[in-house]
Amino acid sequence: MAQFINAKEDLVTEAIDGVLAASGGALSRLDGYPHIKVVFRTEWDKSRVALVSGGGSGHEPAHAGFVGKGMLTAAVCGEVFASPSVEAVLAGILAVTGEAGCLLIVKNYTGDRLNFGLAAERARALGRKVEMVVVDDDVALPHLPQPRGVAGTLFVHKIAGALAEEGADLQRVTEAARSVIGKVASIGMSLDTCTIPGSKKEERIGAGKAELGLGIHGEPGVEQVDFSTAMGAMTTVVDKLRDHVGGNTVAIVNNLGSTTPLEMSVLTHGLTASGMVQHLVGPAPMMTSLDMHGFSVSVMEATAEEYAALAAPVAMPAWPGLMQVVEPPVVGLPDGLTPIEPIPSQNDRTRAIIENVADLLISAEGSLNELDAKSGDGDTGSTLATAARALKGNLDKMPLADLTQLFPALGDALSQTMGGSSGVILAIYFNAAGDACANGASVHKALVAGLNRVSQVGGAGVGDRTMVDALAPALEALPDGIAAAAQAARIGADSTASIHRAKAGRAAYVPEENLKGHNDPGAEAVALLFDALAKEMES
Amino acid sequence: MAQFINAKEDLVTEAIDGVLAASGGALSRLDGYPHIKVVFRTEWDKSRVALVSGGGSGHEPAHAGFVGKGMLTAAVCGEVFASPSVEAVLAGILAVTGEAGCLLIVKNYTGDRLNFGLAAERARALGRKVEMVVVDDDVALPHLPQPRGVAGTLFVHKIAGALAEEGADLQRVTEAARSVIGKVASIGMSLDTCTIPGSKKEERIGAGKAELGLGIHGEPGVEQVDFSTAMGAMTTVVDKLRDHVGGNTVAIVNNLGSTTPLEMSVLTHGLTASGMVQHLVGPAPMMTSLDMHGFSVSVMEATAEEYAALAAPVAMPAWPGLMQVVEPPVVGLPDGLTPIEPIPSQNDRTRAIIENVADLLISAEGSLNELDAKSGDGDTGSTLATAARALKGNLDKMPLADLTQLFPALGDALSQTMGGSSGVILAIYFNAAGDACANGASVHKALVAGLNRVSQVGGAGVGDRTMVDALAPALEALPDGIAAAAQAARIGADSTASIHRAKAGRAAYVPEENLKGHNDPGAEAVALLFDALAKEMES
Repeated sequence: MAQFINAKEDLVTEAIDGVLAASGGALSRLDGYPHIKVVFRTEWDKSRVALVSGGGSGHEPAHAGFVGKGMLTAAVCGEVFASPSVEAVLAGILAVTGEAGCLLIVKNYTGDRLNFGLAAERARALGRKVEMVVVDDDVALPHLPQPRGVAGTLFVHKIAGALAEEGADLQRVTEAARSVIGKVASIGMSLDTCTIPGSKKEERIGAGKAELGLGIHGEPGVEQVDFSTAMGAMTTVVDKLRDHVGGNTVAIVNNLGSTTPLEMSVLTHGLTASGMVQHLVGPAPMMTSLDMHGFSVSVMEATAEEYAALAAPVAMPAWPGLMQVVEPPVVGLPDGLTPIEPIPSQNDRTRAIIENVADLLISAEGSLNELDAKSGDGDTGSTLATAARALKGNLDKMPLADLTQLFPALGDALSQTMGGSSGVILAIYFNAAGDACANGASVHKALVAGLNRVSQVGGAGVGDRTMVDALAPALEALPDGIAAAAQAARIGADSTASIHRAKAGRAAYVPEENLKGHNDPGAEAVALLFDALAKEMES
Repeated sequence: MAQFINAKEDLVTEAIDGVLAASGGALSRLDGYPHIKVVFRTEWDKSRVALVSGGGSGHEPAHAGFVGKGMLTAAVCGEVFASPSVEAVLAGILAVTGEAGCLLIVKNYTGDRLNFGLAAERARALGRKVEMVVVDDDVALPHLPQPRGVAGTLFVHKIAGALAEEGADLQRVTEAARSVIGKVASIGMSLDTCTIPGSKKEERIGAGKAELGLGIHGEPGVEQVDFSTAMGAMTTVVDKLRDHVGGNTVAIVNNLGSTTPLEMSVLTHGLTASGMVQHLVGPAPMMTSLDMHGFSVSVMEATAEEYAALAAPVAMPAWPGLMQVVEPPVVGLPDGLTPIEPIPSQNDRTRAIIENVADLLISAEGSLNELDAKSGDGDTGSTLATAARALKGNLDKMPLADLTQLFPALGDALSQTMGGSSGVILAIYFNAAGDACANGASVHKALVAGLNRVSQVGGAGVGDRTMVDALAPALEALPDGIAAAAQAARIGADSTASIHRAKAGRAAYVPEENLKGHNDPGAEAVALLFDALAKEMES
């Protein structure tokens, strides 16, 4: 599977350079590429306990993304899924450790334990105070000989980090880290394996299956389980974790890589619905396994001091913060959603105009359909005729005597009977015209206001091969009388036959040759309508 | 492809519930499920201009993830890739709009324009002041009839949001939004299409190809281009954007879904290396397209006021903040990485002991290999014999007269000649012993200190079927004399033959039946070693 990388050999150093470039200067690195890849806080003055973590790469944002004030002091990065060397870890320790000493936070993998362990010895031989803790939070099996270190490590980073930032001494920071490690429990589930750059993806999880208790290096899970729903998956995970906590529980909800935010939120909903957790960190990608389609949950029962440490704000965007799980407020729907039914009123002249125009549209059904067939799906005539028939049948309920009410009522009626985009556009037109009327505009000004709004919302102006090409010149000419308006509409409608490139509306997607020589059906309808109005008014 | 969802019908409402649960009470929703899905700020008092955005779901964290102080007031969420209805948008507007009015921020899709547009009309008819802006930042083609709205929308959310939060009036907020829209340019590239829940994934991008200028709804890209490297991909994108900016450029680097953080950082490195941008937002998933394996870059030339608005801190973890692009500080490697060569010194007694022990290990090569073959790869004897030979040949350079120096020197020599885990473990052992000596410990105490450190780092205690099973009792008995120690080591080594379940070391992965009746080779080597020492001392 293709990936956005260059050479595999430069992958990790280039990624680190990207992290550094996006850190706004907050992060520095040691000049040890390619062998020594150490990222550390730029403004660090060594006055407090240094926290150094790291391990193989491929778990981003861990660990470099958590380097900063209040969390890690340095991250020592290996190649993808490979422990950094003793020399690299030692360089990291020496770069950031002052009189206050250093705590190494190591995930429980043999390579990391040994390399960080020996680096610690060598740093001690050089006179540095160094402690080391090993995180083994995976509870996939109850009596695993060597439980792996996974996303629960973030609890250690954050809590030890907050204490160190406050100036706690090495012993206190180490004890706090050990206390967290003693109680944190994690488990992960995945629907697919990860893609290791430069390697072929291992397809080992069949359809309808998920791996439970997986590590974060592509190693097989402890068991394959049946998978059907997110809720089922989360129930399985919660069942494995429930015995490890008893209240005041905080959970890290970790995206293992390519799970979508939508899925992570569905899973989070399932977790909070279980009632097991009172606080959340995430959901977010924190300790990933490249592009693994999975998630993990890490839980711990937190003391008041630990809560305070978890809640302490940090600037690193990779840390999503601590949130209390609360029943989200659900607020009743606002008034005004249902349009107020207009009060019917009668006006013979208005009724006659509408009936006349409606009859015109009904009679033009065939010709407009034919025109539409050239550039669309051939239903403009039918759509308009159907709406016109419905309108005629509904005139007794319309507020014919009051234009301020009539305009929006027409809009609502048309949008209901026409449906689709055309209905919404006419609804916008007549609602905007009604709004202008209500604000004291003349009929002409109101119609122009409607046009402006439709142009803004629909994005079409004159020359875009829409009904605007007829409507705009018609309204412009209207002060000179309805006959002038009808003439302008006709000229405008006919001009659309030579617009071969539609910029808005559905015709924008029709090949140019199909448009040549045919009027836009919307513009044509407007021209017919103004023509009918002119005849009606003059009669 | 399986996904962590339950029923497709409940996907969006469940995801919203997850977002609400993880918001710590900061977000509320309207009681309009399933049709009306509106998320808004809980503490909102309507005293300032409200910002309402939204559209189809599947773009998370947009838009609900950007609801909060300083960005959006409400998000109206449709189903996946489907516009919300007019009623839903109207409900959102009415729920949050007070005297100061409301700005709708809409991405340029016909459905969104029309539904938001008509909702705006209806809200106006109800007396609300509503403005609407349409974001069309996609520059995939120079003269696209309807440029799509993509991740550049985030610029509008953030800048308008900061102004509204400060108390700017509707006109000023709208003008600021329009000004941003007038200059923002975005383009995306993807290596794969997205998986729409409930639909089969469309495989339309062949090997070695990428889609350029894609939308965020799974629609095909404007063109397929050759793909080979991340740098090539970013160069293509930068070339499309460069004409749209001329300095003071800020870029949003957006993960379209399942691109790994490692890849996003490599891409970011490429972007910053281009010299086109001076500030960054991201990389982060902000406007995603479900699980699309792609990225987008949105750029704008920002004024001082816009920079200030982009930099204003917000609490939503989905917003990664604005960072200045700086040349990351590269710091020279610390002193102390190269072990100091010990000063050779001579001591005949020490030399004799080491030579004797080395000869013993050399002579035991075959039997230890045989033992190791039962539980491992049969090379323990050879590994130790090789190290012993090298040690004998190197004794003239060793600081034999000074135990404080000799211990770490032995450790370094063994780790270099043995390699692998055993070498690191012995290096840790002797370095820790040397450290203890340097701090005034007796030889016995120093050896115990070494054991403690190895247990801590390696994770093995007595009973775990490792060399610790012989070493620990030997050191415990050492105060009673070397003969007692040798006897204790022998008993300990022999006890490992009945430990069938190794908890640490490589034998942890060997089936139980293979271990029965055989001593652990490491423990056996320790017993042989103490036996040789006892004979040497007594001679």
